[in-house]
Amino acid sequence: MHNFNIEDVVKEIVELDGGSMLKAQVRLDSLTKPQGSLGRLEELAKQISGITGSLNPDMSSKLIIVMAADHGVVDEGVSAYPKEVTPQMVYNFVNGGAGINVLSNHVGADVVIVDAGVAADLTALNSNSSFINKKIAFGTENMAKGPAMSVEQARQAIEIGIDVARQMVEKGYGIIGTGDMGIGNTTASSAIASCMCGVDAEFVTGYGTGIDQEGFTRKVDVIRRVIEVNKPERRDGFEVLAKIGGFEIGGIAGVILGCAARRVPVVIDGFISGAGALIAESIAPKCRDYMIASHCSVEKGHKIMLEKLGMKPLFNFDMRLGEGTGAALGISIAQASMKILNEMATFGEAGVSQKNE
Amino acid sequence: MHNFNIEDVVKEIVELDGGSMLKAQVRLDSLTKPQGSLGRLEELAKQISGITGSLNPDMSSKLIIVMAADHGVVDEGVSAYPKEVTPQMVYNFVNGGAGINVLSNHVGADVVIVDAGVAADLTALNSNSSFINKKIAFGTENMAKGPAMSVEQARQAIEIGIDVARQMVEKGYGIIGTGDMGIGNTTASSAIASCMCGVDAEFVTGYGTGIDQEGFTRKVDVIRRVIEVNKPERRDGFEVLAKIGGFEIGGIAGVILGCAARRVPVVIDGFISGAGALIAESIAPKCRDYMIASHCSVEKGHKIMLEKLGMKPLFNFDMRLGEGTGAALGISIAQASMKILNEMATFGEAGVSQKNE
Repeated sequence: MHNFNIEDVVKEIVELDGGSMLKAQVRLDSLTKPQGSLGRLEELAKQISGITGSLNPDMSSKLIIVMAADHGVVDEGVSAYPKEVTPQMVYNFVNGGAGINVLSNHVGADVVIVDAGVAADLTALNSNSSFINKKIAFGTENMAKGPAMSVEQARQAIEIGIDVARQMVEKGYGIIGTGDMGIGNTTASSAIASCMCGVDAEFVTGYGTGIDQEGFTRKVDVIRRVIEVNKPERRDGFEVLAKIGGFEIGGIAGVILGCAARRVPVVIDGFISGAGALIAESIAPKCRDYMIASHCSVEKGHKIMLEKLGMKPLFNFDMRLGEGTGAALGISIAQASMKILNEMATFGEAGVSQKNE
Repeated sequence: MHNFNIEDVVKEIVELDGGSMLKAQVRLDSLTKPQGSLGRLEELAKQISGITGSLNPDMSSKLIIVMAADHGVVDEGVSAYPKEVTPQMVYNFVNGGAGINVLSNHVGADVVIVDAGVAADLTALNSNSSFINKKIAFGTENMAKGPAMSVEQARQAIEIGIDVARQMVEKGYGIIGTGDMGIGNTTASSAIASCMCGVDAEFVTGYGTGIDQEGFTRKVDVIRRVIEVNKPERRDGFEVLAKIGGFEIGGIAGVILGCAARRVPVVIDGFISGAGALIAESIAPKCRDYMIASHCSVEKGHKIMLEKLGMKPLFNFDMRLGEGTGAALGISIAQASMKILNEMATFGEAGVSQKNE
């Protein structure tokens, strides 16, 4: 189905192009504004120049990849919504009615939904151009009782992400955002954060889609049990993914690796995408520089993830929807930064006086 | 030239429409997402529904109004750039080469530049469709030696803003952002913040376009002298404006009042627009609810202004350019919020299961 192995993709991920970053800085400093006065927009423009090796990469085609899958741990009563919502929302995505559709439309980005492991038959959607069937299984196993998936399936989840990212880059997408759908996936993401950031579940667990206090206590207990039962080696992304899941989180990690290998900026959504980013970074530390953190989520573990990754989010709108909604808004800001670099007049062109010396 | 007085405009500014806000909340809660999970986007949608009295106001036409003027206090050596830059940048705006042009294009907003008091003859631009000649004088007087302008001129500056806002709303603009250009205007804004927020100049003065430490000390001294020489009554917006200036800050205050009276959301840029917002709020406290604070500026007085106004900015990109650059990005977010309200599917429409009870 695909002709690569993950280790080779990791080797393709190189450092950012310092020459392009330097050229971008020189140009930014020649534009009709006080130096550095566009703050993070200037930093972003420089980063994207380094990622792409170009001061004017083609980012006219933008994409959100929504990875969808189910979680066996939902049997433990950790979510406010029934797991039927995962496939129902996949239909909602395909029909254009979800938050991510609206925000992607707003910023001019396309959306594709990848079934990485939804616990329902979605083959009826196979002919839909915005749907990609990469189902590994009908949801993960209940990680409170044992590994969420096999190591082979963990590799497969990451390969799916790499494969989709490569296909989409070949289609011409110049900037890609990550997104997720999966009832139960804040539990998996909190468990990943607890394990990989080395903090107790209590400090990285939130209210997900809206559980009550009792549900929260149960969720924290379940996450502690997940870590205890599985004892994942925290520095091994494959093992963490296999033991904790889920398929969509592995898929997101793969999208990040695939984009980094192809030198395409990848805009990271919130908490679930953050879990994917942690996995990706543990496999290929250099991929970090290819990521742009869009927002900081309400889920309290997200801040800890971002700190661990050394990434500063662009904004905090108190969002906790996932789907790529933060990434969509982030893509627009990333694109704005490159327009600043390319479309503003220089002091010379505009005949504007420079600073007093 | 115009057929209104400020006091009548103030009377037109009423409380937000609670009925529309309630309807917006009910609709937001019926959409296919956990309730409240789009955080500030949902708050914005509710606010804009209350402002406009509609759940689906026409915001397809968007505008940034850039108010430009010069400041006599520049003679004190408070700016890193020569004052010739003000008219030079007006030409840059009209020619489309400035930061605000690029970001407005990006979000699909138009730009108009208003000469409220630039110290150069700009009549050559009178025929340009994006330029509006409302010049009050060739810059303000040096406020370190006496009032920046007469009380009559202060009223005129505010009337200019109201007039332009009304004209633009009549043209069909459904959301308006504020912007500024004026070498020396961080000095005026810091003085306004010091006076109206009741804090010493040191705590509300920043580095503007890029002065050095020596320039900073001089700027703080000048601002203290301005307050001492003029002794403005801090609760009287007209008096503060007259004594401290500038024409563009009064113009921005007028735009805010004009938008609020016409029930059009007005997106506030950074530090200079914040000074305009303080003046507007002191004249008509109810106008506050019509404002959307876009970003928090690097200028340290801005945070204090926003706290005084009780407004929470949407983002902080370490920006300090002005011109309306933050407002342009904020307009896009405001528009996104209304698309969420109107374009997402409800649980019923999408056949998605509701929360477990």
